Amino acid sequence: MTEETFRPEARAPRGFADKRSPQLRAERRIVEQVSAVYERWGFEPLDTGAFEYADALGKFLPDSDRPNEGVFALQDDDEQWMALRYDLTAPLARFAAQNWETLPKPFRRFAFGPVWRNEKPGPGRFREFIQCDADTVGSARPEADAEIIAMAVEGLEAAGLPRGTAVLRINNRKLLNGLLTSAGVDSAGQKLAVLRAVDKLDRLGEEGVKLLLGEGRLDESGAFTKGAGLKGAAVDRVLAFLAAGKGDRAATLSALSDIVGGSAEGAEGVEDLGRIAAALSALGVGEDRASIEPSIVRGLEYYTGAVYEAELLLETTDEKGQAVRFGSIGGGGRYDDLVARFTGQPVPATGFSFGVSRLAAALKAAGREEATKGRGPVVIIAFDQDHMGEYFAVAAELRAAGIAAEVYLGSSGMRPQMKYADRRMAPAAIILGGDEIAAGTVTIKDLDLGRALAANIEGNEAWRAERPGQQTVPRGELLSRVRAIVDAAG
Amino acid sequence: MTEETFRPEARAPRGFADKRSPQLRAERRIVEQVSAVYERWGFEPLDTGAFEYADALGKFLPDSDRPNEGVFALQDDDEQWMALRYDLTAPLARFAAQNWETLPKPFRRFAFGPVWRNEKPGPGRFREFIQCDADTVGSARPEADAEIIAMAVEGLEAAGLPRGTAVLRINNRKLLNGLLTSAGVDSAGQKLAVLRAVDKLDRLGEEGVKLLLGEGRLDESGAFTKGAGLKGAAVDRVLAFLAAGKGDRAATLSALSDIVGGSAEGAEGVEDLGRIAAALSALGVGEDRASIEPSIVRGLEYYTGAVYEAELLLETTDEKGQAVRFGSIGGGGRYDDLVARFTGQPVPATGFSFGVSRLAAALKAAGREEATKGRGPVVIIAFDQDHMGEYFAVAAELRAAGIAAEVYLGSSGMRPQMKYADRRMAPAAIILGGDEIAAGTVTIKDLDLGRALAANIEGNEAWRAERPGQQTVPRGELLSRVRAIVDAAG
Repeated sequence: MTEETFRPEARAPRGFADKRSPQLRAERRIVEQVSAVYERWGFEPLDTGAFEYADALGKFLPDSDRPNEGVFALQDDDEQWMALRYDLTAPLARFAAQNWETLPKPFRRFAFGPVWRNEKPGPGRFREFIQCDADTVGSARPEADAEIIAMAVEGLEAAGLPRGTAVLRINNRKLLNGLLTSAGVDSAGQKLAVLRAVDKLDRLGEEGVKLLLGEGRLDESGAFTKGAGLKGAAVDRVLAFLAAGKGDRAATLSALSDIVGGSAEGAEGVEDLGRIAAALSALGVGEDRASIEPSIVRGLEYYTGAVYEAELLLETTDEKGQAVRFGSIGGGGRYDDLVARFTGQPVPATGFSFGVSRLAAALKAAGREEATKGRGPVVIIAFDQDHMGEYFAVAAELRAAGIAAEVYLGSSGMRPQMKYADRRMAPAAIILGGDEIAAGTVTIKDLDLGRALAANIEGNEAWRAERPGQQTVPRGELLSRVRAIVDAAG
Repeated sequence: MTEETFRPEARAPRGFADKRSPQLRAERRIVEQVSAVYERWGFEPLDTGAFEYADALGKFLPDSDRPNEGVFALQDDDEQWMALRYDLTAPLARFAAQNWETLPKPFRRFAFGPVWRNEKPGPGRFREFIQCDADTVGSARPEADAEIIAMAVEGLEAAGLPRGTAVLRINNRKLLNGLLTSAGVDSAGQKLAVLRAVDKLDRLGEEGVKLLLGEGRLDESGAFTKGAGLKGAAVDRVLAFLAAGKGDRAATLSALSDIVGGSAEGAEGVEDLGRIAAALSALGVGEDRASIEPSIVRGLEYYTGAVYEAELLLETTDEKGQAVRFGSIGGGGRYDDLVARFTGQPVPATGFSFGVSRLAAALKAAGREEATKGRGPVVIIAFDQDHMGEYFAVAAELRAAGIAAEVYLGSSGMRPQMKYADRRMAPAAIILGGDEIAAGTVTIKDLDLGRALAANIEGNEAWRAERPGQQTVPRGELLSRVRAIVDAAG
């Protein structure tokens, strides 16, 4: 089989999406709006390469076999294993460690770009997606967490979620650790079981969590989940901890202090959260935009202090029109040990990350897409090869006035050209036949009007004969007439 | 060695760059400006995934061993070889073939994003870089080439190259083929040797090319390059062909017609170029912005008709201050066979591509960077932990007014904080000590003024004592005073 006769099948690799105009515009708009906010907060953009050495990603020893658990990895020609980044935090930790001496400290950066996960693809599950992160490296102050939280709130609002449609829920790992200590939990296994139970408050409610903290829980399907094995008083303490988040920030802090303030780490967590709450108030971020929620755990192992999660409050509907909870649309926290992996010296850091495609999907599900997304260019019909020069001049005139325009460049006749203009979502089509050129006129077809009428008219034969929205005007009026149509289309 | 004690070295993989603020801003500005132009021409954005199946890239048979010649490839868990895209054309061809039935035709798309080449890295030679492409798929009309050329001209101007600083040079493969036929060249080897010689006109001049067309050429170092072995009359014909580009487009076309019009393919090439020239004139693209240049060859095998190259005319200087020719900053052409690789059906296509980093480097070398690139945020000095709330309120006030601002969040004292503000290129630093707060005032330090004075003052002890550019004003005047400083900084 030679190169000449072999015909590969045209298909994108599994889990990789081709993104077209509406989706791209929505995602790029989010990135632009959020970037503008992050810049205003003094964060500078940083872009690292797609690859990191596998050892820098922290998952693999350098002498391991081909590492492919979760990442796309390959061996460079010098035998070193490289992997495509699976998030934007690991590359930041590597960059900060590599350049620590020369960076202004604290180092505040934001980043956006694709990350890759070598996981089983499925419907809606991609192996490449865009993340957007902001991090402060080199500040141990709780105010640095507060700033990231406040900025995330403002960023999500700028991205299209009006105030009240999303909330940042804040917690602190130190509180959870203090709780575990004061509840007498010491084994790693039991600790994990308690955190897993806490994490399920949202889904199972207090009763379900209570069972999971104790002996275990039998679900509707008859499956039994073994519990953490806590005794009555310890279970009550955890439940009281979870219930502490029901008031405002001050009330929650006071309640939490009563429950975990007895342990040194718990007291420290309360103190940190108090400073975060004070900074949020100074920054004008009220209870409706950021609250303390003791049940927030966040899965990642590496968090060491504050953790936060952005939750969508908007009601969204799925394809079947059913109301669904969209849930978390981003999160982050304090990770004080990531840079130290390279340097051995502790470098405190905190940051927030969200998935751009996921946020775009959330906005779409909530009916909050931009209205103009599908707008195409004005299409100049190629009526006669001899007049191509005229058509190009019209296109140039429109573009010079800031109106997107194109000359039809296929080889089809009038009807398919009108169909093409319609499919491109053109606001108007321009027809310049020999008659028009001889008479110094131009025919403009308002396609939006045509589409609107077509949608309203039952039998549209009469409509076709009348050609609504079609006007023949002096050539000199072309620009003003087209602009009126484009402006009306929005 | 365990994960705990192993300390990986913090370094980016070879050939992958970390990009910081000035470079990123310059590159993103180019992409934004050019995208706006392409949208105005009716091209829609498209983004494909980072990976393509290796067979779709056209370089490998599916049963070959690990393909790593020039691309980063790996085997998916279903045994299929995937490779990171090495340009944006191959993914477009795959996408167009995959979706041909449902696409509006002609299909006009632009794209930008990273591409990856598995080549030996070196100084200034990266294995990942940003390309920006625009292509029309499904139009065989020479006017489609003209449009791409005119749009490329406008795009480069929008990116920061004023009219007259760059030119698109146009040729047509059919002309070259016609020339080879009429010069009696028939073997593939001789054909390649002639094209290589033609391609060197820029560097070696007519005399050098003449030698390479004939027996061969001895260069200054004493190395001999074997020539194409053409005889006198054939050499003269090729040289006359190359000299034909010295006039304007009409004169060049007429001269070319005389030389290669005798061969059918040559005549077709002249006809195509004539239609391109006519469309360019209709689009208002004059001789100074796009010219016909018979020596343009373009390396890529797949071009089948028009080829074009964007050349920078600006004088640029290298690091040593020496004047250098920057040369080509982009190019493209017609490739009518790429989509057919998948479908078997011919689909004509034409497009233009440029390297964003390379264009940014060209603009930088030509001293055409944006002036505001390094501007940092206003820095609020963290004078006293007890007043952090005040500092955050000031930052929020400035940001709400659209002024980038941050509170210093490290743990250092006054002097390092001022140094930090200076390193961040802050236009101003805000000092709110206990005295200021008690008096209802605020101290504003104009750091740009300080920097300007410091640059002009020899011994700056006196300057330090006087604290130029430092003003203490009523707290209510903070915003207007800071805005005046930021506006002056530009």
